[in-house]
Amino acid sequence: MTLASKSTISFTTQNTYLNALLEYLHPIGDLEALLALASWDQQTAMPAEAGVMRMHQVAILESIIHERLTAQEMGTLLSNAEKAASQESFTDADRGLLRQTRRTYDHATKLPKSLVEEKARLRSESVDAWQKSRANNDFALFAPFLQRTIALKREVAERIGYTEFPYDALLDDFEPGLTTRKVEAMFQSVRAVSTSLLQRIQQSGQTIDASSLYGHFAPEQQHTLSDQLLRVIGYDFSRGQLARSQHPFTTDFGAPFDVRVTNRYDEQYLPMGIMAGMHEGGHGLYAQGISPALARTALANGASLGIHESQSRLWENAIGRSSAFWQAHYGLLQQAFPEHFKDIEQAIFVRALNTVKPSLIRVMADEVTYNLHILIRFELEKGLVNGEFAVESLPRLWNERYQQYLGITPPTETEGVLQDVHWTSQFGYFPTYTLGNLYSAQILHTLQQTFPDFQEQLATGDTSFILTWLREHIHQYGVIYQPEELIQRATGEAPNPQYFVDYLTNKFESVYNLPPEQVNN
Amino acid sequence: MTLASKSTISFTTQNTYLNALLEYLHPIGDLEALLALASWDQQTAMPAEAGVMRMHQVAILESIIHERLTAQEMGTLLSNAEKAASQESFTDADRGLLRQTRRTYDHATKLPKSLVEEKARLRSESVDAWQKSRANNDFALFAPFLQRTIALKREVAERIGYTEFPYDALLDDFEPGLTTRKVEAMFQSVRAVSTSLLQRIQQSGQTIDASSLYGHFAPEQQHTLSDQLLRVIGYDFSRGQLARSQHPFTTDFGAPFDVRVTNRYDEQYLPMGIMAGMHEGGHGLYAQGISPALARTALANGASLGIHESQSRLWENAIGRSSAFWQAHYGLLQQAFPEHFKDIEQAIFVRALNTVKPSLIRVMADEVTYNLHILIRFELEKGLVNGEFAVESLPRLWNERYQQYLGITPPTETEGVLQDVHWTSQFGYFPTYTLGNLYSAQILHTLQQTFPDFQEQLATGDTSFILTWLREHIHQYGVIYQPEELIQRATGEAPNPQYFVDYLTNKFESVYNLPPEQVNN
Repeated sequence: MTLASKSTISFTTQNTYLNALLEYLHPIGDLEALLALASWDQQTAMPAEAGVMRMHQVAILESIIHERLTAQEMGTLLSNAEKAASQESFTDADRGLLRQTRRTYDHATKLPKSLVEEKARLRSESVDAWQKSRANNDFALFAPFLQRTIALKREVAERIGYTEFPYDALLDDFEPGLTTRKVEAMFQSVRAVSTSLLQRIQQSGQTIDASSLYGHFAPEQQHTLSDQLLRVIGYDFSRGQLARSQHPFTTDFGAPFDVRVTNRYDEQYLPMGIMAGMHEGGHGLYAQGISPALARTALANGASLGIHESQSRLWENAIGRSSAFWQAHYGLLQQAFPEHFKDIEQAIFVRALNTVKPSLIRVMADEVTYNLHILIRFELEKGLVNGEFAVESLPRLWNERYQQYLGITPPTETEGVLQDVHWTSQFGYFPTYTLGNLYSAQILHTLQQTFPDFQEQLATGDTSFILTWLREHIHQYGVIYQPEELIQRATGEAPNPQYFVDYLTNKFESVYNLPPEQVNN
Repeated sequence: MTLASKSTISFTTQNTYLNALLEYLHPIGDLEALLALASWDQQTAMPAEAGVMRMHQVAILESIIHERLTAQEMGTLLSNAEKAASQESFTDADRGLLRQTRRTYDHATKLPKSLVEEKARLRSESVDAWQKSRANNDFALFAPFLQRTIALKREVAERIGYTEFPYDALLDDFEPGLTTRKVEAMFQSVRAVSTSLLQRIQQSGQTIDASSLYGHFAPEQQHTLSDQLLRVIGYDFSRGQLARSQHPFTTDFGAPFDVRVTNRYDEQYLPMGIMAGMHEGGHGLYAQGISPALARTALANGASLGIHESQSRLWENAIGRSSAFWQAHYGLLQQAFPEHFKDIEQAIFVRALNTVKPSLIRVMADEVTYNLHILIRFELEKGLVNGEFAVESLPRLWNERYQQYLGITPPTETEGVLQDVHWTSQFGYFPTYTLGNLYSAQILHTLQQTFPDFQEQLATGDTSFILTWLREHIHQYGVIYQPEELIQRATGEAPNPQYFVDYLTNKFESVYNLPPEQVNN
C-alpha cells in the first residue's frame, strides 16, 4: 500500500469515509450555488423594491450554510476522512478536498457566530456609508466605519492566527500561502519596472492618439459584440450566459456547468465594454474548464483569486490588446460600428488600446501603471491593519503616494481614496490583482515556449490552442493544488516576477519604440 | 375579551405564541422564494447544460423546506398559537395564518417522506415519457406513467382524506373547499350556455374575418408592446420584471415586492403574445397588490388558483378583448406595427379577437368553447381517479367527447389527449380554470354596478379605477380568506355561475348579432 497520491482528477469512491464526507459536502455546494444565484439575480434582474426580501432570503441561506459548515458532524466526517488518507492511497483530488475542507472548517469554527453576524451587518452599513461618503466627497463620513472594519479584521486575524503580521492572515484568506513578505518581494520588481517604464515613456515625449476609441457606440451593438467575442475565445453558451449589470462580474451556480458573465457599456468609450468582456470571458473560461468530477464541491472553483485573475488578464491584456488577435477579429468591430471604423486602421486602434498614461482611477489604468495603483493600496492597507497609522491620515497618505508614484494628485476624495468598494469589507484582496498579472506573464511565457508560432497562430483567428493548453494545465484542476504549486506544475517553475518584468518591458518598448535602456556600470 | 376576529390586515404582534410561529414561518417563506427563483431562472436564463446541477439545488432546498414544515417544533408552535387564538382577539390575518399553516402542516405530515420523494421522481419520469409520447404521437408510451400517477394520487387522497370521492381530496388541494359535487353543479350552467351559444353562432352562418390578427410581427417589437401594455394596466416594474420563456407564467420571490411575469411570441399570430401578456399581467397585478403585512408568510399568495385565474381572465378577456380598452390603446399596436395596422380599423381587430370557432387546443380556445375543453378534462380525470375506467380507454373517450361537445375529432393524439402537461402530475387542477372564468364574471358584474360608466371610463384609457377596486376588495387580502368567502365579501354574494352565463350570452349575442333565443313554452 502506497501513501503517494495519484494525480488523477477524481475522488476515491471506494473509501467509505471520503464518500461520507462528499455526501455531506455536496448539498452545501448546492446551497452555495443558490446563494450565488440570488446574488446574480440581484445584480442582473431583480426589481428595485425587492431588496429587503432578498436580504432575508440570503440571510437564511447563509445561516443554513454556516450551520452545516460548523456542525460537529462535519468535524467528525472530516477527521475520519483525514485518518483514512494517512492509510490509503488517496488521489490529489482527495487530498485537495481534505485540505480545502479543513481550511474552511477551521476558519468557520474559529469565528464565533456573533462575529460572523457583526461582519455581515458592518459590511452592509459600511457600503451605505461609503456610498454617502462618495456622493458628498467626504471621507470623514466613511472613516468611523473603516475604523470599525479594521478593528474587526484585526480580531479575525487574531482568531484565525498568523506567523508574522496580522495582515498575513487576511492575505492568506484570499490567496492561500500569501504573506506580507512575499507581496513586498514581488512589489520590488514590479515597482521598479513600472516606474522605470513610465519614466522612459514620459521622457520619450511620445503620446498616442487614442481618438479612435471614442465616438458613439450603441449599448445593444456593444452587447452583441461582447457576445461574439466570447464565442471567439471559446466561451461555451450551453454552459453560460451573458447579461448586463452595473459592474461586470463572473459567477457560477455549479461550475463547470453553469458559469455566467456580465458586462456594461460606455456609450462614448468602446474599450470599457470590450475589454471587460474579454476579462470576464477569461474568468468564465476558467470556471467552464474545471473538471466535472469536482462539481458540487469546494474544489470546483478557481485555485485562488490570483490564479483567477491570471486568466482574466491573459485574455484581456496579453490576447485582447494584441495586434495578432485584432488582425483576425477587427472585422467584428467594423461590422458592429461600420461608420466609426471605416477609416481607422487596425494598427491605429491596437496602439490606442495600449496607451500608457498615469490616471487616478485603478479600473481604467493601463498595464504599466496598473500595479502602481495596487502598490499604493497594499502599502496603505497593510499599514492600517498592522496599526502603523490612523484612519484619519488615509486621504493625505493616499494623495502623497499618488503624487510619488504616478505624479498626479486626486482633486477629490471620490476620485481618490474613496474610489474602490473593497475597503468596506475586504483587506488583503488588492495584492491578488498584481499577483494575477505576474502569473499571467509566466503562463504566457510557457505558452510561447510551447507554441513557438504563438503570435502567427493567434493572427489566424485561432485561440483554441491556448484554451486547450490552459484547460489541460490549469483549469481542470480547480482547487486541487495550492496556487504556487499549480504555477509550478503548469510552467515548470515557481512563481517568478521576472516574466512580468520582461513582458512589460518588451511590450512597451515596442509600443513606444523606446530607445534601449541605459545601463549604468 | 372578545373572540371575534378583527378585519385588519396585520398580525397580532403582541401575542407571544403567534410571534413565535411567525418567526418560525418567515424563513420558510424565504426558502420558498428561493425555490421559485431557481425555477424562474431555469425557465428564463439557465444554460442548457445546467439541468443536473439545478436538480440537485432544488432537491436540497425542497428537502430543507419539507423538514421544517413537518418538524415537531412547528407542530408545537402551531398548537400553542391555536390555543391562544381561542382565548384572545385575533385578527382575520392571524386566523388565516393559523388555517393555512394547519392545512400545510397536516398535509405535509400525512404524507410520508418516501411518498413525497416518489411523487417528485415520478413527476420527472412522467414529464419525460409525456414528451416522448407527444413526439411519437403515441399515447401508449405515456400510459404506464399515467397509470402510476393515478395510483399515487389515489394514495395521496386516501392519506389526506375526503368525504365522498377520492377526487375531492385532489380538488381541495388546488382550491380549498372545492368538491366534485360543486364542480358538477357549476358545469351544468356552463355546459348549457356554452353549447347553446356555440350552436346559435354556428346556426347564424356568420364567420368573422380574423386575417387582421395574422402577419409578420417581430418578437422584439412584441416584447416592447407587452411591456407597454403591462404599464398601461398598472403593473409596477419597480416590483416586477418581464422576461421571455417558452411558456408564459407569473411567479414571485416575495410578494408583493418581487413579482415577475414572462411571455412568448408567435411571429405570425399577434394575439398569442399580447393576450398572454394581459393574462400574466392580471396574475402579476394580483400578487403585487397583496398587503406587505403578509410578506414572507403563506398568506402572501393568491387565495386559490380559481381566484388567481379570475384576475388573469378579467384582464385578458373582459378588458383585453373589449372594444373600450382598444379604443384607448389601439395606438400602441399601430405604433409597434405601423405597416400591418395602417389599414385595419380598431373595430375589425377587436371583433377578430373575439372569433368563436371550435378548435382542438385548449390554450388557443375562445371564451365560448374554452370551458368545454375543461369540462372534457374534468369528466375524464374524475373518472380516472375514482376508478371508473381504465387508462387505456382515455384516447377513445377523449375523442368521443371532443366530437360530442365541439363537433371535431383530433387527427392525432398529440393534438388530443396528449396536449396538456398537467396529467404528468396534476389532477384536480383543470376545474380551477373554469372557476376562474366564473369568478371573473361575478367580479366584473360588481365592478359594473359600482362604476356605472365602467365602459366609458375604460375607453378613456384609464384602468386604475379597476385596479384600485380589485386591490381593495381582493388583492390585499392574499390568503386570509377562503375563496368562497372572499367572493362573498368582494361581491356581496356567494359564487354564482349565473353571472358568467349572462356575461357570455350578452357578449357573444352582441359580437355575432344573434337573433333573440327562442324560448319554448
